[in-house]
Amino acid sequence: MNRQWWLAEFPTGNISARHFRMTESDVPRPKNGEILVRHLYLSLIPANRAYMNQETYRAKLDPGQVMAGRALGRVVESCHPDFSEGQLVETTRGWQDYCICGPDELIARDNRRPPQHLLGILGSSALAAYFGLLHVGRPRAGETLLISAAAGGVGSVVAQLGKIAGCGVIGVAGGAAKCAWLIDEIGIDRAVDYKSDRFASDLADSHTDGFDIFFDNTGGFVFETALAQMRNHGRIVCCGNTAMYDTSLPDHGPRGVPLALILKSLTMTGFVQMSFQSKRMEAEAKLWEWLEEGRLKPVYHIVENLQNAPEALVGMLAGANKGMTLVKV
Amino acid sequence: MNRQWWLAEFPTGNISARHFRMTESDVPRPKNGEILVRHLYLSLIPANRAYMNQETYRAKLDPGQVMAGRALGRVVESCHPDFSEGQLVETTRGWQDYCICGPDELIARDNRRPPQHLLGILGSSALAAYFGLLHVGRPRAGETLLISAAAGGVGSVVAQLGKIAGCGVIGVAGGAAKCAWLIDEIGIDRAVDYKSDRFASDLADSHTDGFDIFFDNTGGFVFETALAQMRNHGRIVCCGNTAMYDTSLPDHGPRGVPLALILKSLTMTGFVQMSFQSKRMEAEAKLWEWLEEGRLKPVYHIVENLQNAPEALVGMLAGANKGMTLVKV
Repeated sequence: MNRQWWLAEFPTGNISARHFRMTESDVPRPKNGEILVRHLYLSLIPANRAYMNQETYRAKLDPGQVMAGRALGRVVESCHPDFSEGQLVETTRGWQDYCICGPDELIARDNRRPPQHLLGILGSSALAAYFGLLHVGRPRAGETLLISAAAGGVGSVVAQLGKIAGCGVIGVAGGAAKCAWLIDEIGIDRAVDYKSDRFASDLADSHTDGFDIFFDNTGGFVFETALAQMRNHGRIVCCGNTAMYDTSLPDHGPRGVPLALILKSLTMTGFVQMSFQSKRMEAEAKLWEWLEEGRLKPVYHIVENLQNAPEALVGMLAGANKGMTLVKV
Repeated sequence: MNRQWWLAEFPTGNISARHFRMTESDVPRPKNGEILVRHLYLSLIPANRAYMNQETYRAKLDPGQVMAGRALGRVVESCHPDFSEGQLVETTRGWQDYCICGPDELIARDNRRPPQHLLGILGSSALAAYFGLLHVGRPRAGETLLISAAAGGVGSVVAQLGKIAGCGVIGVAGGAAKCAWLIDEIGIDRAVDYKSDRFASDLADSHTDGFDIFFDNTGGFVFETALAQMRNHGRIVCCGNTAMYDTSLPDHGPRGVPLALILKSLTMTGFVQMSFQSKRMEAEAKLWEWLEEGRLKPVYHIVENLQNAPEALVGMLAGANKGMTLVKV
């Protein structure tokens, strides 16, 4: 049988499991030119929630559609010459056991790698960290790098890549436990709890001279606070805006834009990792090399069973987990 | 006698002439190492108002201080070997007939040029246009350039430099008269009135494919509207934030930051022209060359008499004038 999670209704405010509905139906059969894929892992990322708010890098997700998202699967039946049974593939077809894909909807992945790594440390969050930090942020040894949502799927990789690049790395995360974990397990230099009343002054205490690079995953008030502590000619890499995702009431933009950018000669650059597709091989090779050398630690929060995907998304948006959230289908 | 305009009190909300107070006193005498300068022209720019709100590229201006601003003057008495009588100089000493300066407070200017041009088409607003467009924005022929406050002191130069660079140039200005003037006199391709109820749709009608470069002098809702109409991989040059200057109630930041930057892979870069001081000779030479070739038209709104400086500033902030506002002292 094919279990499928559908978006049942648009959330108003925070999303909860009741906004989804599961059905079971027969496993579909591929027609000529099509490929049947069995999903093994789903990747849950904050942007999944943003799909429900507006067109993003994909069309807006409407109620009555299968919940979208990136997945790692295996070809179980192929009616297309480019894909054979057993091939590991990446899809964007989301929360279902099986899907029927055309060849253009699949990216063939390396069968020699463990599936969770293909969606994890070699997947889109790690690529966002890699391209965003190394190609957009361009860190130099000795610079001070600030990361928001540093304990998240992207942030925890950026943090490690920042150390590999020789930066002083400061992470923002929610709660003392995550902050301690970032220092003890991820190896960054300082961590600042944005839930503290003293956040702005704690952040100021975390550096002597301001931030050269700010890798931002959140926007919102963390962005506002960090903006005021940038060094002249600093660079802000805009990777995510999680502060705005799990809401139906778009907040105002951050104070200090654009005046602080002018007065400090700052650059703010947004990106999506898909723009760097031509460099994906290079990125995967480097990430794997650092993994094998023990310099890059993959951190996965693995949720068992597709059944639990809605609760996993809700938990991730509430900041319950560290690292990348994967659902083992 | 030396007339001096002082900031008498901080404005709450819009500034008016009553926030200034004039005194007359004896012309001061320079001591050893000092230079006495007679101001000939003052440059009024929107940022003058921002001086009263916060530290900018200069210390915050407080009540009880002479109103600050850039001026072009002539040395009338020098007790320093680097400056001789008759030398044209630039100061930041603002609204007064005479000032006593140390040598580090003066920039010697080219005595062969007319003083109004030294403060105008070779002055800080023109340099902001030059460096901001050509060094930060880096326009390529065939690109579409949007300019906010296009009829202002910086904008009217950016507009012409954009045409020289081979761009399609669209300007935003307040009112039909300024829009017509931008097309007829400045030679841009289209102009859009931000005071119109149809501003967003008029702006959308002004282009087919979005903007490659947005040279922003205002921030605020014009920025918000333009942000939504940028092309993927577009560049936003942040030069000014006039929407926020003449107020004591800082508004929120623009909606769409940072999400629109991410989804469209936009870059937003703030700058101040003083950062490009080492390239000033090159810039002045090019600007003068274009002026002599008739490709660059200086547009000055010249107000006679230092007496009228407060009214001139109020008028400029209200958008009463076109081009650069100069006060002939």
